[in-house]
Order: sequence, then structure tokens, then C-alpha cells
Amino acid sequence: MKDIAPEITTGGLPASRKIYLEGTLHPLRVPMREISVSGEDALTVYDSSGPYTDPDAQIDIARGLPPVRGGWLQARGDVEAYAGRKVTEADNGFATGDRLTPGFPVQHPPLRAVGDRAVTQLAYARQGIITPEMEFVAIRENEGRLARHATDGEPFGATLPELVTPEFVRQEIAEGRAIIPANVNHRELEPMIIGRNFKVKINANIGNSAVTSSMEEEVEKMVWAIRWGGDTVMDLSTGRNIHNIRDWIIRNAPVPIGTVPLYQALEKVGGIAEDLTWEVYRDTLIEQAEQGVDYFTIHAGVRLHMIPMTIDRVTGIVSRGGSIMAKWCLHHHRESFLYEHFEEICDICRRYDVSFSLGDGLRPGSIADANDAAQFAELHTLGELTKVAWAKDCQVMIEGPGHVPMHKIKANMDEQLKHCHDAPFYTLGPLTTDIAPGYDHITSAIGAAMIGWFGTAMLCYVTPKEHLGLPDRDDVKTGVITYKLAAHAADLAKGHPGAQARDDALSRARFEFRWEDQFNLGLDPDTAREMHDETMPAQAHKVAHFCSMCGPKFCSMRISHDIRAEAEKSKGMADMADLFRKGGKLYVPAEADTGLVSDVEGASVDKVPAQSSAKPSPAASGPAE
Amino acid sequence: MKDIAPEITTGGLPASRKIYLEGTLHPLRVPMREISVSGEDALTVYDSSGPYTDPDAQIDIARGLPPVRGGWLQARGDVEAYAGRKVTEADNGFATGDRLTPGFPVQHPPLRAVGDRAVTQLAYARQGIITPEMEFVAIRENEGRLARHATDGEPFGATLPELVTPEFVRQEIAEGRAIIPANVNHRELEPMIIGRNFKVKINANIGNSAVTSSMEEEVEKMVWAIRWGGDTVMDLSTGRNIHNIRDWIIRNAPVPIGTVPLYQALEKVGGIAEDLTWEVYRDTLIEQAEQGVDYFTIHAGVRLHMIPMTIDRVTGIVSRGGSIMAKWCLHHHRESFLYEHFEEICDICRRYDVSFSLGDGLRPGSIADANDAAQFAELHTLGELTKVAWAKDCQVMIEGPGHVPMHKIKANMDEQLKHCHDAPFYTLGPLTTDIAPGYDHITSAIGAAMIGWFGTAMLCYVTPKEHLGLPDRDDVKTGVITYKLAAHAADLAKGHPGAQARDDALSRARFEFRWEDQFNLGLDPDTAREMHDETMPAQAHKVAHFCSMCGPKFCSMRISHDIRAEAEKSKGMADMADLFRKGGKLYVPAEADTGLVSDVEGASVDKVPAQSSAKPSPAASGPAE
Repeated sequence: MKDIAPEITTGGLPASRKIYLEGTLHPLRVPMREISVSGEDALTVYDSSGPYTDPDAQIDIARGLPPVRGGWLQARGDVEAYAGRKVTEADNGFATGDRLTPGFPVQHPPLRAVGDRAVTQLAYARQGIITPEMEFVAIRENEGRLARHATDGEPFGATLPELVTPEFVRQEIAEGRAIIPANVNHRELEPMIIGRNFKVKINANIGNSAVTSSMEEEVEKMVWAIRWGGDTVMDLSTGRNIHNIRDWIIRNAPVPIGTVPLYQALEKVGGIAEDLTWEVYRDTLIEQAEQGVDYFTIHAGVRLHMIPMTIDRVTGIVSRGGSIMAKWCLHHHRESFLYEHFEEICDICRRYDVSFSLGDGLRPGSIADANDAAQFAELHTLGELTKVAWAKDCQVMIEGPGHVPMHKIKANMDEQLKHCHDAPFYTLGPLTTDIAPGYDHITSAIGAAMIGWFGTAMLCYVTPKEHLGLPDRDDVKTGVITYKLAAHAADLAKGHPGAQARDDALSRARFEFRWEDQFNLGLDPDTAREMHDETMPAQAHKVAHFCSMCGPKFCSMRISHDIRAEAEKSKGMADMADLFRKGGKLYVPAEADTGLVSDVEGASVDKVPAQSSAKPSPAASGPAE
Repeated sequence: MKDIAPEITTGGLPASRKIYLEGTLHPLRVPMREISVSGEDALTVYDSSGPYTDPDAQIDIARGLPPVRGGWLQARGDVEAYAGRKVTEADNGFATGDRLTPGFPVQHPPLRAVGDRAVTQLAYARQGIITPEMEFVAIRENEGRLARHATDGEPFGATLPELVTPEFVRQEIAEGRAIIPANVNHRELEPMIIGRNFKVKINANIGNSAVTSSMEEEVEKMVWAIRWGGDTVMDLSTGRNIHNIRDWIIRNAPVPIGTVPLYQALEKVGGIAEDLTWEVYRDTLIEQAEQGVDYFTIHAGVRLHMIPMTIDRVTGIVSRGGSIMAKWCLHHHRESFLYEHFEEICDICRRYDVSFSLGDGLRPGSIADANDAAQFAELHTLGELTKVAWAKDCQVMIEGPGHVPMHKIKANMDEQLKHCHDAPFYTLGPLTTDIAPGYDHITSAIGAAMIGWFGTAMLCYVTPKEHLGLPDRDDVKTGVITYKLAAHAADLAKGHPGAQARDDALSRARFEFRWEDQFNLGLDPDTAREMHDETMPAQAHKVAHFCSMCGPKFCSMRISHDIRAEAEKSKGMADMADLFRKGGKLYVPAEADTGLVSDVEGASVDKVPAQSSAKPSPAASGPAE
């Protein structure tokens, strides 16, 4: 990632202030962002950005964020501090001297479960316990619900309650339909939930490049991604210094951090897939669990017998983890050690509450390979593994494609729900065509919005640089905003209570020429303002009562206001409508129009009555009176 | 539009050459773009860019493009040249002296039908005549079909023949399901077809700004838009000089040009909507028809009684034409003169073959207003008007929204098909959320791809500047490429024969590390190459056998190649698959896998057999052998 300022971006977004809602069951403060709107109530929106946008927060990345979960963990009394694994040179890719990124200055001994207890949110939920994490996400998910007006939607079987209660959260987790990725060693975390019956979330990927990155740069990548709406961040670093850099990231991360432990394991064996062993992998899992990684992508569904199914594909295996495991299996002609040792992996995860993100190592990498036998064979295996993990009280989500044309997207969701027992789905896009390198944030936003609507719980972002290069700062922002709008489009289509409040507030601002409000209520106020300035730079135009595109004469919204004023002059529109109903100078039979007019509010397509065919055609109506 | 170079962009796209296919029924040459691919056959793609990308063409915008249709029109013998309407000062907004854009240097007397004949493609089609225009588009639409491999899709009732014959085109036009916008005064046109059973098309809007534009600038806007894939261009100019500038555009346009005549009519009455008259409007229609405008947006569906239905909307009336007509109706408390004089409008259009684009003046401008009574009332009226126009042998398409959440998109298509009798649908987006100003090319690409899949024939682009300002050169390109990828995603999902050939060619290039081919086969080779250069500038990396993002060790595609090589070493994958089927060292029952493996090729979701549940779970399978 280039052009990253080695400074941490802080400060609120325009016209926004940080507010905190208190818990009632537990001592907790849930952050929200309140956007002030002129002449209306402020709009409260979900806030993934953490303390970085709180002017009262003291940001010092060498100290890390405050351990907001510390008290909760202590109160549960089921974890113990212990010496932990010793960090080795291999953990940092044998970087030494100047090339070694310094370790994080403040080290605490790691926590793990006492004995063989499961300290997972799933275990608590099954025991009927509402944890602080559950109450936290319940409050967080209620954003907009209280002030909402009626919405409709097609939820495809999702259950979207009027109000999210802590008990509802508990039930969803207990049933495996949602997860709260929250490692006991990530005390800095502001919990969030991933599940079909909650807001659609997005993930942003970061990762150090081959060139040595500074700690500040890596932390800033994460801060930048969550500032614009990243709900979780995956650290896909490879190469040197990844242990130490990961420490810096997690200690400063208010969002869940995910990793693909296989990447680090591969580095430890010099990049030779065949040399991977269960022992190296296992050690890496413990290393990362002790640091506080919240979810692991584990490619345990790539099995030896599936590899031949990929041979005739146009693009073979496109998952890095999938290809590494396939190579290992083929070389040794053995079943995957991830599959064989899956129960042991569960035993590690349950001690720290690391959630599973079961990787789709055989996802399609092209339209031609979508929904093929290899992809679905692996998906079915992920369903089996889900049950194994659940039996161990581990939290699970399932990764999905990839490249899929629109008409094959729904089948992905349906198959996943059916074979993975309602575990949350977490998809990469999918990209709906292969022909637009440089625009794959858009080819994939189309698929992401659709599959989010159908039920995917979290969408992994794609940047414009996909297939071409490493995303820079602008690409990360573009990817995050693109996925935020796709996730929101999905929430709207599902009929998520309260989701439309932001659209409506922005549309009112648009209609009333409140330009500043229009910018501030958008996902990216800075870009919106810059674009407006390009055409109409003068400050006076920020209060102009016409659209910058059309000028005053051709501004439909300005004319609409004139129409309303005119209508009100003539005794109000209700009377006018009444006049029209009675026929007046019009050709329209009374019944047809009455139905339409009375249905204006909250009209949906189902309610629109079939138009009377008794209307004379213009041909029959003759010249004007 | 800023930053437009006052030069016309010419020259082919990278690795591309212009080819022409000959007609068999008529003397005609259909342009195509052939992209050379290393080690494979060249890929032929649809080419909207006109002679500007032909190195053999002599481009001189003061002479205009060659009149390729001249001979066809002459041969039909049903049009006559006549003196034409005299251009008035009002036509150019009373611009004089230095402020007057010079007229186009070469003026021909306009053509019109002899007597009261209809010279429309619809009239010919109904008479069983296959015109050169029909043969031209048949050849054009067959791009990719001959070389295609099997595809699937969900066409939602569309009929997509293996091969498009001229007779199929004729039938589609005769039934009103497709149009070829082709004014007899637009002799420079390379015909294209708009209909549900053809490739999904896109329109790009241009228009002079308040500041005086040069002719070169305006022509370059059009050339730039079609270079990247615009199938038609709407000239939405307002203000001064629009008559003369329109002349420059049409004389240099190989694509159909659409306009909203109401805009010019409003200029002629000083921008006062109430002062509009049928006479001024009628005169403007004739003026533009004589110049060669191929389709008119006519907002004849906005009727007096519908206006009260918009009063409680969040964003009122957002169509410029719709708001102007609503204001007129309300002020005079009279039915719209467009509605009342609709038959007379038809009489004009049939003399020149100007197609109707029946405007959706009451389209929703926000999520809150989607699919409301006003919108559908107007749509039903457009259906009535369609029949009136058809009775006059006029070609018709129907404009559609706007802002619509995903779950309400399908209903728009269904209502349109039902009430507008299968006339082609032409939609603006729709935008699937209101909350992302600055990114509305993306919020709308989601809706555009979906509604294109469902059956919309042409998608009107939206640029990133939507709602904020005037698009510049980069915005136009971004809008066009975004809509090209959305239209293509729709073609793929419909199962358009041959559509997937380009995806497959690009994916093969990607898998084989043919970087140059990957760039060249994409919609925007320049941007793809630039993005790759940012990460890996060296020329050597253009032949690198790994992805620029991951480096060699983590390149899944490189590893996939290793896997294939390894597989082939061990007697081929077929043998291996056979071994697996027999059980070997694996746990999997033979039957389940046999089914999957034999189904790899051409597998679609329907064909994937239910996975056997007899597989032991990992828990049961014990340690590795």
C-alpha cells in the first residue's frame, strides 16, 4: 500500500459527533455516530471507527486502545493468564536488526480458558448466559430502529425483529446463526455481530507488502479502513515481521481482526507448501490466538479427492490457501492435515474463542468455473465441519465465492443455507463478470448487494486493484465505500427496520437544497463536497436552490417546490385530488383514480390497482377543451 | 464538462483492429473490433466507436462522417428532399456574433416521407421488408455467437436465438419488441437495435454547459463516450447554440442521437414553463427531426390528474421534463399538450422515423418514492400511448426509473412488460440506495445490471457526479465503463449466446499470466495497465508468472499450474480420479464422488447431485493413515 501517511487519521467525520449508549445489564458503552442535520433531528448511524473519531480519546499507538473488555473477561472468571508461547525468530520471518519491526512495547501474558472449558460466545449462549458482548451488539444493532418509519422488503426467510434484544442475540448465537468474533486476548474490541438476521457487515483486507512497512503504516491502514465503515479487518500479511506487526494492529484495533494462519505457517517453512506440517501449523494457531486474532480462515474443506475436479477449470484454484493445501495434498498424496486435525483445531479455538471462517479454497475464479462440482463439494464439507466445530462450542462462519454470474448467485446462498445449517455466510463479492479489470469493485458490488440481500451476513470487499496490484489508500477507501453501499442496499431490500431512515434524511436534504446536509449524510462527505465544488465552487452555491447540474431553469426539484406552492394556493391538494376524482375536466373515470390517489402513501407494487382499460385513448379524446 | 481536449480522439484501442463484415442482402459493411490474443484466435467484439477507431478513416469534423445510409434511403424511394424549416435566432438561444457557434459548414436539404407515408423501420417490418438497417443490426448482434461454447442463463422470458437472422430482426421490430432508432436525416448512422431479445445497450448523456462550448468540444464528448462503449448518446444541451451544436454532433455521430425537445422549446420561451405552447413545441420537433435526431424523449405520460399523487413524495418530481409539464398543467389547469397532441406528434415522427422514448416524468427520485402510485399511473399511460404510436407505425421505447431498492426492481420490469405490451424498456439505473453521493454510478450499476437481466433493453448511464455536478471527461468514461460491465453482466445472466466468450478469453489470459492479453481483453485496457504498473512497473513483470498482489510464493494460479503438472506426471488426472473413485486411501464412499467428478464439465447448480450424507465426519475418521 503506497501513499499511506505514517500518521494515524483521527477526528470525526463532518458534522458528526461521537455518542455512547449505556448498557443496562452490563457496564458498557456502545459508540454511535450522530450526524447533525439542519432543521431536523440528528441522525444516529452505526459507527465502526472506534476511538479514533472521538476527540476525547487519547490516541497513542504505542500504548494501544483501552481494554474495554478487560472487566467483562475478569468477571466471567473462566480464563487464566499464563506464560504463553515464546516468540521465535521464525515468527517474524527471521528479520533481525534494522529489518526487524520493533515488538509492541506493552506485553501482557495471554489469557486462555481454565482447564478444558469453552470460553466462546456460543458456549455461553447455549448456557443461557447473556454476555456483555451480546448486550453490546444488541444496542449497536438497534441504530435507527426506534426512530424508524414503515419499510417493506423481501427478507428471503431472514428474521428481522422490530427491536434487537440481548436475548435475541443470545438465541441467534446459540443456534449458530450468528457469531461475535471476540478472542479473549483482544480486550480492545468493540464487539460486533455477523449473522443473517443482523445488518449486513463488510470486511476490508490489509496486509504488509514485501517492502518493510512501519508499524504506523500498518496501524493506519486498519484505522483508515474502519473510518469509512470496515466492520472487520483481515490482516493478510506475508513475509517478514508479521508477528510484530500483527501485535501492533490488534492492540490498536476496535474491530475484529481475522487472519489466514496458513500464510504465516508457509513463511515458517520457507514458502515450500510441501514442507508444511501439522506441528508448524498448530504452533502458528496458538501464536496468533495468544495475540488476540478474532477469526481464522481455515481451508479445511479442500480435500484430496476434490483436486481432480479442478483440473478442467478455466482458472484452476484461485484461493491462496486452497492452492497451498491442494499442492500439499497432491504432493504427499494424503488427506489435508487441516481436515484430519480439525477437532484439534477446534480445541485450540475454544480455549481463546477464535471464530472459524471456514475458507472456500475451491471458490471459482472465473465466470466459467462458477457453481461447479469442486466448489459445491467443498461447501458440503464445510457444512460437515460446521457441525464438528459446533459440537466443540466453536463459533463458525462460512466463506463463499468469488466469480459468479447473476443468475447463479441465489443458488450459492440456497446451497450454503441448506448444507451449512444456517451458519453465517461471508462472501468475496461475487464478481458478476470477468471483463472489467480495474473496475472489479463494481463487478463485485453488483454480486455483493444481491447475495447480501439473499442472506449473506458479511461481504469481503474488493478494491479497484483486484487482479492487478496492491491497493493504495484511495483504493482501500473506494473498496470500503463501495461495499458499504452494497451492504446498505441489501439491508434496504431485506426490509431491515430503520435502514431507510438514512436514505430518507438524505433525500429530504436533496429535495430541500440543503447541500451541506446532503454531503454529510452520505457515506463519503469529503468526495461529495469535492465533486460539487468542481462544478460550483462558490460557497454561495452550497445554499443554492437549484441543482448544480441543470441550473435554475431546469431544476426539477425547484419546479416541484413551485408546484407544491401553487397547489397549496389553490385550497390544498386534497381538494384538488377530490376535484379530479369527480371528473372535472379530465377524461379519467372516477374509480380508477380514486384507488390510485388514496394509495399514494406507502404504495407498493402489490397495492397498485390494475389501471382501468376503459380510459379513452388520446386518439379518442379529441382536441383539448 | 471540463478537461475535454479540443481534439477528437482517434486511433484504435490497444491490440485491436477494425474489421468490417459484408451484408448479403444489401450493400453494407458492419464494423467490428478484433482484439488480438497471444496464442489464441483473435476475439471479435461489438464496436460502437464508429470510424474514429479506424486508422483508414479520414476524420474531419467540418465535413462530417460519410453518409453510409445515403444509398439505402435513396433505394427505398419513399423520401423527398425539401426546403426545410428556416433556422431562427431563437433556435440558438438568440446567440449572436462571437457568442454564436458557427453553423455546420455542409448543409443538405432535409428528407421527409413522400406524402403521408410512414418511413419507419416498423412500417417496413410490418410490410415484410427487411431493410439494410435490419440486416446491419443482425450481423452486428451475431458477434461472438458463431464461436460460442455452451452457456446457460435465466432469460425471464426473453427469446435469444442461436443466431440472429435479418428475418428475426424484422419480426421483433414488427411486433414492437425492438426498435432501430434511425432518422432518415441521420445518414451517417451505423444502425443498432434496442430490444429485450438483443444485447443490452447503454446510453451516455452529453450536453453543453452554460459556458459556451466549442463545436470540437461537443463532438469530442460524443466520440469519447462511444469510444468506451456508448451505444447511443443523448444530447441534453440547454442554453445557447444548441441548434448549431446539435448539427455538429449529428453530422459526426455514428450512433443514434436522442434529445428531449422540451428543453429547447423551454429555451425558446425564455425558460418560463407556463409560456410553453403546442406550436413552439411542434416547431421544435420539426426542427430537430430535420437535423436527424433519432429519438425523442416525450413526457406525454404526465397528466394533470397525476400531479396530486406526487405531493406527499419525499422528492417530488425529479424528471426535468416531468416537472416542466406538471408545472404547465397545474398553471393552466389543463391536460398536458403533449398528451392531447400525441397523435400529431406521431404524424411528425413517422415522416422522419424518429423513435419515441416515452419519458418517465414521474419516476421516483428517492428510495422512499419507488414504485408509488404516481410512477405506475404514468407507466400505464405510457402503455396507452405506445398503442397510439404503433397505430401510426412509429417505433417506441419506454423510459423507466430512477431510484428503486433491489426488492422492488423486478416489479418495474413486470409492470412495464405487462402494461407497455413488450415495447423495449430504457431505464436510468435504477439507484438502489440514496446514501452514496459521489458513488451513484455504483449504486445504480447494481440496479442496472439487475433490471437488464430482467429484460431492460437499454440502460442510461449514471456518472459519479450524479446529484453533485457536471461530469468531466473521466466521469463520462467511468460512467460508460460501469454501464458496459453492468450490461454485460446482464447478458451473461440472461444466457446471451456468445456473451461469455470474452470472460473466458480474459480468464484464460489471467490464468496463463498473459498480462498484456488480460489488459487488452478488458473494457478499459489503459486503466488496467496503469494499475498494474503502479505495483509492478517493470516491463519484465508483464510476463511474470505470478500475481502482482501476492508475489510468487503465494500465487494460487502459479500453484495451480504446479498442481496440473504434478497431476499429469502421475499418469494424468483421469487415472487419479479413477483411483479416488475406487477408494484408495480416502474415506469417501465411491458413489458420491463418481457423480461429482463426472459432472465437473459444464456443471451447473442444477446438476450438482446432493452430497451423500454417509460420509463419516472428521471426528469419526480418526488420525491420518
